[in-house]
Amino acid sequence: MSTVSSEQPLVGLVMGSDSDWPTMEAAGQALSEFGIPYEAGVVSAHRMPTDMIEYGKSAHERGIRVIIAGAGGAAHLPGMLASVTPLPVIGVPVQLKTLDGMDSLLSIVQMPAGVPVATVSINGARNAGLLAVRMLATDQSEFGAELRNKLVDFAADLKDAAAAKGA
Amino acid sequence: MSTVSSEQPLVGLVMGSDSDWPTMEAAGQALSEFGIPYEAGVVSAHRMPTDMIEYGKSAHERGIRVIIAGAGGAAHLPGMLASVTPLPVIGVPVQLKTLDGMDSLLSIVQMPAGVPVATVSINGARNAGLLAVRMLATDQSEFGAELRNKLVDFAADLKDAAAAKGA
Amino acid sequence: MSTVSSEQPLVGLVMGSDSDWPTMEAAGQALSEFGIPYEAGVVSAHRMPTDMIEYGKSAHERGIRVIIAGAGGAAHLPGMLASVTPLPVIGVPVQLKTLDGMDSLLSIVQMPAGVPVATVSINGARNAGLLAVRMLATDQSEFGAELRNKLVDFAADLKDAAAAKGA
Amino acid sequence: MSTVSSEQPLVGLVMGSDSDWPTMEAAGQALSEFGIPYEAGVVSAHRMPTDMIEYGKSAHERGIRVIIAGAGGAAHLPGMLASVTPLPVIGVPVQLKTLDGMDSLLSIVQMPAGVPVATVSINGARNAGLLAVRMLATDQSEFGAELRNKLVDFAADLKDAAAAKGA
Amino acid sequence: MSTVSSEQPLVGLVMGSDSDWPTMEAAGQALSEFGIPYEAGVVSAHRMPTDMIEYGKSAHERGIRVIIAGAGGAAHLPGMLASVTPLPVIGVPVQLKTLDGMDSLLSIVQMPAGVPVATVSINGARNAGLLAVRMLATDQSEFGAELRNKLVDFAADLKDAAAAKGA
Amino acid sequence: MSTVSSEQPLVGLVMGSDSDWPTMEAAGQALSEFGIPYEAGVVSAHRMPTDMIEYGKSAHERGIRVIIAGAGGAAHLPGMLASVTPLPVIGVPVQLKTLDGMDSLLSIVQMPAGVPVATVSINGARNAGLLAVRMLATDQSEFGAELRNKLVDFAADLKDAAAAKGA
Amino acid sequence: MSTVSSEQPLVGLVMGSDSDWPTMEAAGQALSEFGIPYEAGVVSAHRMPTDMIEYGKSAHERGIRVIIAGAGGAAHLPGMLASVTPLPVIGVPVQLKTLDGMDSLLSIVQMPAGVPVATVSINGARNAGLLAVRMLATDQSEFGAELRNKLVDFAADLKDAAAAKGA
Amino acid sequence: MSTVSSEQPLVGLVMGSDSDWPTMEAAGQALSEFGIPYEAGVVSAHRMPTDMIEYGKSAHERGIRVIIAGAGGAAHLPGMLASVTPLPVIGVPVQLKTLDGMDSLLSIVQMPAGVPVATVSINGARNAGLLAVRMLATDQSEFGAELRNKLVDFAADLKDAAAAKGA
Repeated sequence: MSTVSSEQPLVGLVMGSDSDWPTMEAAGQALSEFGIPYEAGVVSAHRMPTDMIEYGKSAHERGIRVIIAGAGGAAHLPGMLASVTPLPVIGVPVQLKTLDGMDSLLSIVQMPAGVPVATVSINGARNAGLLAVRMLATDQSEFGAELRNKLVDFAADLKDAAAAKGA
Repeated sequence: MSTVSSEQPLVGLVMGSDSDWPTMEAAGQALSEFGIPYEAGVVSAHRMPTDMIEYGKSAHERGIRVIIAGAGGAAHLPGMLASVTPLPVIGVPVQLKTLDGMDSLLSIVQMPAGVPVATVSINGARNAGLLAVRMLATDQSEFGAELRNKLVDFAADLKDAAAAKGA
Repeated sequence: MSTVSSEQPLVGLVMGSDSDWPTMEAAGQALSEFGIPYEAGVVSAHRMPTDMIEYGKSAHERGIRVIIAGAGGAAHLPGMLASVTPLPVIGVPVQLKTLDGMDSLLSIVQMPAGVPVATVSINGARNAGLLAVRMLATDQSEFGAELRNKLVDFAADLKDAAAAKGA
Repeated sequence: MSTVSSEQPLVGLVMGSDSDWPTMEAAGQALSEFGIPYEAGVVSAHRMPTDMIEYGKSAHERGIRVIIAGAGGAAHLPGMLASVTPLPVIGVPVQLKTLDGMDSLLSIVQMPAGVPVATVSINGARNAGLLAVRMLATDQSEFGAELRNKLVDFAADLKDAAAAKGA
Repeated sequence: MSTVSSEQPLVGLVMGSDSDWPTMEAAGQALSEFGIPYEAGVVSAHRMPTDMIEYGKSAHERGIRVIIAGAGGAAHLPGMLASVTPLPVIGVPVQLKTLDGMDSLLSIVQMPAGVPVATVSINGARNAGLLAVRMLATDQSEFGAELRNKLVDFAADLKDAAAAKGA
Repeated sequence: MSTVSSEQPLVGLVMGSDSDWPTMEAAGQALSEFGIPYEAGVVSAHRMPTDMIEYGKSAHERGIRVIIAGAGGAAHLPGMLASVTPLPVIGVPVQLKTLDGMDSLLSIVQMPAGVPVATVSINGARNAGLLAVRMLATDQSEFGAELRNKLVDFAADLKDAAAAKGA
Repeated sequence: MSTVSSEQPLVGLVMGSDSDWPTMEAAGQALSEFGIPYEAGVVSAHRMPTDMIEYGKSAHERGIRVIIAGAGGAAHLPGMLASVTPLPVIGVPVQLKTLDGMDSLLSIVQMPAGVPVATVSINGARNAGLLAVRMLATDQSEFGAELRNKLVDFAADLKDAAAAKGA
Repeated sequence: MSTVSSEQPLVGLVMGSDSDWPTMEAAGQALSEFGIPYEAGVVSAHRMPTDMIEYGKSAHERGIRVIIAGAGGAAHLPGMLASVTPLPVIGVPVQLKTLDGMDSLLSIVQMPAGVPVATVSINGARNAGLLAVRMLATDQSEFGAELRNKLVDFAADLKDAAAAKGA
C-alpha cells in the first residue's frame, strides 16, 4: 500500500489501518491529478503510538508540508499528529460498520483550542487531497501560482461537467 | 466590527452575521498572536449572495491567501466561498440556540467531492486562526520558515502551560 | 435529464447532481399528474455557483412561479436559490451514503430568519411536487380554482386507495 | 391571543397551545410587514381534534389561502391539517423543554407521500410568515406582482442591513 | 389484510399503510397466542383522516378495549387516535427507509400532557400485542385472572427457552 | 415521599431515586384526579435489586393492577419490573443533566420481544398517570365504565380549555 | 454455546440471547489467547431475571473475577449484574437491527453513580476480552506479572502487524 | 490540583485539562473512601503528547495498577494511554459546552480492536473511581479480599440509603 516516489513527497498520507486504504486512496488520486508527490502508509495512533509520534514530529523536517490522516471510530490519529507537528493536518473521518462515521467525525473535528485539525466530510478523502492542494497553493512562489491556476481550471472543469449533465 | 490594517491582509475572516463576532473574534486574536494581518467583515451567503460570490471570486486576486468563514444553522457561507475561490477555506460551525451547533457542523463539513472546506470544531474560531497560520507556514520562503518556528514555540508554550497546571 | 416542454414551465425543478435524478424525478411525475409544465436540470450550488445564482435571480422573470431544489450532504442549493429569488423554494433533502439524509435535512431546513425554504421529508420529492401544486393552487384565478378542485379529488383518491387496502 | 381583522384573512396562523404564541407571533409580524391579513388561534390536534379537522376542511372555503401551523413534541397539527385541506400548510417545529425541537422537526417534516408539509426551521416562525408571503406572491394577478416587488425590496433591505454591519 | 373474527374483537389493530403489515402482524400473532380476538385494518391518519377520527371515536362503543396503532415517519396515527378515544392506545414506531425509525419513535412517544400513547420499541409489534394482553389482564373478572395466569406461564416459558439456550 | 392510602392501591408508582419525585409526582396527581388509589416509593433497580425484583414479583398479588416506573440515564427499572410481573408497566424516561433524556428513553422503550414496557414521553409522568387510568378503564365491570365516562369528560375539558385559549 | 473448562473459570462471559454469540465469541477468543479460563452462557436480564440476579450474586464466590456481559437494545444485563456483584463488569453494546447499537451503548454506559459498568465499543467483544485480561493483570502475584508481560508482548505484536501493512 | 500521597499510589488519575478537575475529583473521592492511594494530574494528549506517552509507558513500572483518564470533546487521552500501557484504562467522557458530552463519549468508547478503554458515563467520575476499586479487588491476595468485602458493604449501604428515601 505504500507509495514510493522519486520526487520529494510534499504530502504525507497516513491512515490508522490498511482497511482504510480503499477510502483513502482517493486522496492520493487527487494529489496525483495536480502533480503533487506524496507518501502513503499506515501509521496507527493506537497500535504504533511511538512511531506515530515520531512520524508527526519529523514530518516537516523531511520536507512534508501537509499531512492527511484518515481514521475511523475513536479516530485519534489526525488529532495526535496535529499535536506534534507544525504542519496543517487534514482529518478524514472514515465510516466503520456502525454509526455511519459520526463517531469518527466527532473524534476528529472536536479538537480543543490550540491544536486544530482541518476536517473534511465522512469518507471525504478526495476532498482531503484537494484541500491539501489548496493549502500548497498558498505558497507565494511560482509553484503556488501554478497550483492556483490549476485549481481555477479544475473548478471550471467541474462546472462544465455539471452543466453538461443538466443540458 | 470590520478591521482595517495598514498591511496587506493575508487572511479574510468573514461571517454570516455580526452576531457571530463574539465567537469569531478568537480567530482574529490567534492571527494577531502570529503577526498575520487579516481583514474581517460580514459576508452573508443568504442576505448578500452576490457580494458573497464576488468576495470569494476576488479574494485571491487581492492577496488573500486563506479564508476563514463562520456561520450557524444552515451554514452555507464556507461552502459557497469554497466553490468560487481557489484558496483554502476554513469553516467554523457556530452554535445557535438549538441543536448545539450540530446543524452548523454538518452543513459545513459534509461538502461534496470537488469543493473541500477545512472544518474545525463547533465554535472553534481560535483553532481556525491557528489552522490558517499552519497553512501559511507551508510557504517555502523565509516567511514560512519563521511561521513554522513560531508554531513550534507555540506548541512548547501550550505544553508548559498544561504541565504547569498539573504540577 | 433535462426536460423541454412546449408550454411555459411554471415550476423549476433543479438538483445538485444528476445522481439526484432517480430521487427527484418523482417531483416531476407529481407535477405532470396535475398538468403543471416544468423544467428540470442540474444546477449545482458548488460546481456552478455563478450559473446557480443567475438561475435563481432570473427564474421569476422567466415565468417560473415555484422552484423545487433537491440536494444531499451539505445541501446548499435550496437555501442559496431562496436567497436570490422572490419565489417560494421547496427543498428536498436527498439521502447520500452516510447519515441517512440527516445532514441534508439540517442543511436545508435550518435557514436563518429572512430566507425561508419549504422543506419536505428526506427523499420526499413526490411531496415536493404536490406542495408546488398546492402553492400554485393559491392563485385566485380560474387556474387556481381548478387546481384546488383537482387537489380535493386527489385527496379523495388517496383515501379510497388507502381504504381499499384495509377493507 | 386571537386576531380579528376587518379584512378577509388570507393566512390562517394556528398553533397547538397558547404557550406556542411567543414563538409563533413572529409569523404574524412578518405577514403584517407585507400587509397580509391573517387570523390566529389555538387549534390543538390532540385536545380538540374534531375542531381541528373542521378548521382544516373549511379553511379554503372561507378564503384562507395558506395555513401556518406551529407545534412542539409529537407535533401532529401541521400534518393533520395538510391531510384535510388543499391549501399549502407551513409547519413550524416549536422547541420544547427537551430534545431541542428535533422531535418537533421530525414529526412535522417526515410526512408520507401524498400529504406534504412545508417545514421551516426550529422556532422559525418568522420564516413561516415570509414563506406564506412568497406563496401568495405566486398569484398571477396584480396582487401577486405587488407582493413579488415587495419581496425583492425586502431582500434588498436584508442585504443593506447585513452589509452595513460589516462595513 | 383485514381480519374477521366470529368473536367480538377486543383489540383494534390498525396501521397507516398496508406496507406496515409485515411488521405489524406480529402483534396479531401475539394476541392469538393468548386467545384474544382482534380486528385489523388500514386506518391512515393522513389519507383517511375523517375515517380515522371516526374509528377512534367509536371503538370503545363497539366493544374494543385496547387499540394498537403502527405507523412510520411522521407517525401521527397513534396520537390522533389517542386524542379521540378513552381507550389505551399502544403505538408501534415502524422503521422506514431512513432514520432507522427514530422519526417514528419521536413522533409517537413525545405526546403532550393529556393524551398518552403507550409506546413500544421500533418495529416492536409483538410487544404491542403482549402489552395489550397485560392491559386486558388488569380486568377484575375471571377473564382477567385467567389472562394473568397465562402471562405468568408465558414468562416461565420465556425463561425456560432462554435457559435452554445457555445450558 | 411515600404515600399511604386507606384504600387498596391499584397503581404502584415507583422510581429509581427520590430525585425523580419532582418529575414523577405528576403521575400521582393525575391518578388522584380520577380517584385512583396508589402507592409511591423508591425502588432502585441498581441500588436495591433484590427488593426491586421482590416488589415486581408480588405486586399483582397485593392487588396492584398497573405499575408506573420512572428512571433516568441507563434506566433499567421499568424493564426489569416488566420482566417479573404480569402487570402492564408504564415507563417514564426522566431527563438527567446530559443528553436530554434520550438515554433514558432508549433504555426504556427498546425492550426485547417478550417483555413490553408502555413508554411515555420524556418527563411525561402526567401522561403515565393518565395512561394507567385508561388501562384500568378497560375493566368490564361498573368500575371500568365509570372510568371511561370520566375519561370522556376529561377529554371534553381538555378541549374546552384549549378552545378557550384560542378564542 | 456454553463452555466447560477443566480449570476454574476466572471470567464469566454472559449475554442476553444466544443470538448475541456471534458477536460475543470474540471475547472468549481473546481470553483464550491469554490462557484465561472462562465460562460462557445465556443469562437474560429480562427473560430469566431471578437466575440473572443469582448468577451475579454468586459469581465472586465461585471464583469468577471479572464478568463480561453483552446485550442489545434496552441492554440491562451489564448494569443489573453490576448491581449485585462486587466484581468489575464489562459491558458490550450489541448492535441490533435498528439504531446501530446506540440504544445498547447508552443503556449500558449511562449507569448511575454507585454502580459502574466498564463499557467498550459497539460490538467490541474482542476488546472486552482484552480488558478483562488487563484487569486480571493488576493482580500483584506472579500470575499478574506474567499477564502484564504477555500484554506488553501483545502490544508489540499489534505494532508489528500494523507496521508491516504500512511498509 | 496534583495530589501527593505518602503511600505508593495505585491509581493514576489524569485529565486533559485542569478545567476537568471539578468533574474528575469525584473519582479521587471514591478512591479515598476505599483507602486507595492515588496520584492526580494534568496529562494532556494534545498539548503534552510526549509527556503523555511517557506517563502511560512508565505507569505500570511505577506501581500504578489502574489509570483513570478524563477528557472532553475529541477526547484522545484515555485511548492514547491505553495504547502504551498494559494497565486497564478507565475513560471518563467530560461534558463540554456543546453536544452534552456525546462527542467525548464516542471519542473514548469507540476504540479499535486491540486497545480497550473501560468507559463510564458522561461526567461519571465517581463511577470511574468505584470501577478502579472493583478492578483492584480482583487481586487474589488479602488486599483484594478486603476490598471485595468493602464493596459488598458499600452496596449494602447504597441499598439502605435508597430504601430509607422510599420508606
